[in-house]
Amino acid sequence: MSKKIKNIALIGAGLVGSLMAIYLKKRGYKVSLYERRSDMRNADNSEGRSINLALSNRGIKPLTEIGLQNQLEKMVIPMRRRVMHDVKGNLTFQPYGKEGQFINSISRGGLNALLMNKAEEHGVELFFDHRCREVNLENTEVTLEHNGKEKQVKADLIIGTDGAYSSIRTAMQKTDRFNYHQRYINHGYKELNIPPSASGGFHIEKNALHIWPRGNYMLIALPNLDGSFTCTLFLPFEGENSFETLDSDEKVEAFFNDVFQDVIPYMPTLLKEYNTNPSSSLMTVKSYPWVINKTLIIGDASHAIVPFYGQGMNAGFEDCRILNDMLNTHHDDWNIVLPLFQKERKPDADAILELALRNFIEMRDSVSDENFLIRKKIEAKLHEQYPEKWIPLYSMVTFHENMRYSEAIEKGEKQKTIMDKVMAQQGILENWNSIDLEVIVNQLD
Amino acid sequence: MSKKIKNIALIGAGLVGSLMAIYLKKRGYKVSLYERRSDMRNADNSEGRSINLALSNRGIKPLTEIGLQNQLEKMVIPMRRRVMHDVKGNLTFQPYGKEGQFINSISRGGLNALLMNKAEEHGVELFFDHRCREVNLENTEVTLEHNGKEKQVKADLIIGTDGAYSSIRTAMQKTDRFNYHQRYINHGYKELNIPPSASGGFHIEKNALHIWPRGNYMLIALPNLDGSFTCTLFLPFEGENSFETLDSDEKVEAFFNDVFQDVIPYMPTLLKEYNTNPSSSLMTVKSYPWVINKTLIIGDASHAIVPFYGQGMNAGFEDCRILNDMLNTHHDDWNIVLPLFQKERKPDADAILELALRNFIEMRDSVSDENFLIRKKIEAKLHEQYPEKWIPLYSMVTFHENMRYSEAIEKGEKQKTIMDKVMAQQGILENWNSIDLEVIVNQLD
Repeated sequence: MSKKIKNIALIGAGLVGSLMAIYLKKRGYKVSLYERRSDMRNADNSEGRSINLALSNRGIKPLTEIGLQNQLEKMVIPMRRRVMHDVKGNLTFQPYGKEGQFINSISRGGLNALLMNKAEEHGVELFFDHRCREVNLENTEVTLEHNGKEKQVKADLIIGTDGAYSSIRTAMQKTDRFNYHQRYINHGYKELNIPPSASGGFHIEKNALHIWPRGNYMLIALPNLDGSFTCTLFLPFEGENSFETLDSDEKVEAFFNDVFQDVIPYMPTLLKEYNTNPSSSLMTVKSYPWVINKTLIIGDASHAIVPFYGQGMNAGFEDCRILNDMLNTHHDDWNIVLPLFQKERKPDADAILELALRNFIEMRDSVSDENFLIRKKIEAKLHEQYPEKWIPLYSMVTFHENMRYSEAIEKGEKQKTIMDKVMAQQGILENWNSIDLEVIVNQLD
Repeated sequence: MSKKIKNIALIGAGLVGSLMAIYLKKRGYKVSLYERRSDMRNADNSEGRSINLALSNRGIKPLTEIGLQNQLEKMVIPMRRRVMHDVKGNLTFQPYGKEGQFINSISRGGLNALLMNKAEEHGVELFFDHRCREVNLENTEVTLEHNGKEKQVKADLIIGTDGAYSSIRTAMQKTDRFNYHQRYINHGYKELNIPPSASGGFHIEKNALHIWPRGNYMLIALPNLDGSFTCTLFLPFEGENSFETLDSDEKVEAFFNDVFQDVIPYMPTLLKEYNTNPSSSLMTVKSYPWVINKTLIIGDASHAIVPFYGQGMNAGFEDCRILNDMLNTHHDDWNIVLPLFQKERKPDADAILELALRNFIEMRDSVSDENFLIRKKIEAKLHEQYPEKWIPLYSMVTFHENMRYSEAIEKGEKQKTIMDKVMAQQGILENWNSIDLEVIVNQLD
């Protein structure tokens, strides 16, 4: 019945849009990629902050599929463990996974530029400074503003890859029976910087994700290739120790001296950055359906999450891979693939959204708790001895790219119930190393 | 610091907008009320369907405060009980409250016209055919389209009373840290009509709300002054017995014959209406904050609910009364009242939203269950004997206009826990009339 799809317009040339464009171009579609901003590859690099992200298996798999593995290797810094800094500067350590499992710090801008280059190489047409003004979901037509003039673009399929504040989704939201949810958490974040040492090296352990967990708030740091670290301070917007109350140089200095003392020597421009860099908000987005007629939203446009599981970009990339897989299976029959994609993928988007919210508590609070660290050690032992049967939740999410998020959260719940009982045993903090692991693992059945 | 508020612009002249305008005008403000549609009072009455609503204590109190009690009495039909129709046409009955407690069927259009007249009488300026195009939340300025031309209106305060699809809220939604949630239930509704009898009387019991509860769906009927009833059919959009599957005259006829047989003789134009009247969707809206700078949203604009508790309009009217009360208490200091109103009222809006969703199950399913009816009878006895201590949830919500919704839902939860235990007793269906009520009521402490 319906017209064969040849021309695809993607709205938003961020990470997900650029990757999806490559997949689709490789399948033989005519692909146009429209971006609101100007070409970031021409921008003076110093003007944008260098924001890094945690790339892990679910993101690496699709990047490998489109042939970027070699380039990628030169761009990442493996982070093998969490390094926790207490108020006195004492360190504790928690490996992310087994030997050889790690997550990767990567520059958002660098990866985005790489994907744009690759997209152009494949023949994707990129249009910068094109702001989406309106979407006609009946006619699959989008109105774009360029140099103050509006132009209409008609496509056989529109894909909204325009992020958490998606204008494609905003248009969908006005249609009947569209479910939508946006929720801000009480915390915001501010980026700060640890520059390289005088010799060009790393001031603190390079191959790690650093956390200063402080209960209701935290500081984290991810390494950059140049020896610097990008730090992110997560604070409540209001209340004690909040962006609202830390409103003078004196208060900020006193606060850092009090709770982040060990990092102060490495932050010579702390106050300037604190005052200059914005305090940004953190939002969760749920929506459904993701498809209306011949318009689809993917990535943050349909499901945006908080950053505490390091999965936002990875989940978006996984969207692209799964959509491509379904096109393979169903021979590019979009009438099958579009409804199938949203139906199959929605529970996974909901799962990682929930996990990301929960992980904030873990990162800022639990990781500084002995009980919690022992629990993690027992789980690591379980995983070592029963590598297929007991996979810690973090590992399922981060290193098991063939397991669905929804399956991971479900298995994680089961494990949690079992581990809650284990940790309630008397003397567990002393004798955890000698408990009977088989008894534990058998409770899974 | 801030400018004194004199001019107030209300966007939306529906029930809540018109009532709020009257309250504010009586306080001495200059009040302008803008409405997207043309003046409904001039419209040919036959063209709009006569939709009726259930008006109860929380709505009556503010209408009385502004002096409409006498006019109101001539417009309502008291509904003293639920009349349940089973598939064979057998009737069961459930009083709504104690002797003298009832809810009221009233015409939406009639009440809206009355409120508009009253508003004009008091000196509110009404502007019809004014569509809200844009809101500037910084400058408290709204762009309205009238006769194809745009005009700017600046006010000291804007109140969005523009309903569940509020354009004021849409503007707020784009601001940072605005939480928003819209969710459609799987059911839709279609209005149908039972005309008056040949002699001009009521075909079925006049002073009642009629329900044909059928598990996953239901039909209800509310009386109109002219002897007719407005019926509403609630069906799932998809699946068995849904708007999707009932897609031919034969199927609709067979369906009604099968499950609503007793009403068919009174519905001579059933098929015509079924085919002509739309199948409309049902949405729940949550939002927060309700105030941004000097713009406020109230009623459905900030909290829209499903209709199953008959509280949507009543809750909106209560918003107006509470805002007015706060202005009394705080001598029209909007800097106090605006933040106070949203903070105090939000938990109540959340409570009635939740209760309305739950009551759908009760209406379409539980009311046909003997166990449920016995439970209600025990609660009625408890209420009779301990009128202050045990007030059934429905009564707290509907007849206790001085109790907050949030208090009602909380007390209702406690009562439910107690009643679940009572109903689990052996032989309760036989000996319910002789159980010790004091033992039950004492569990509340």
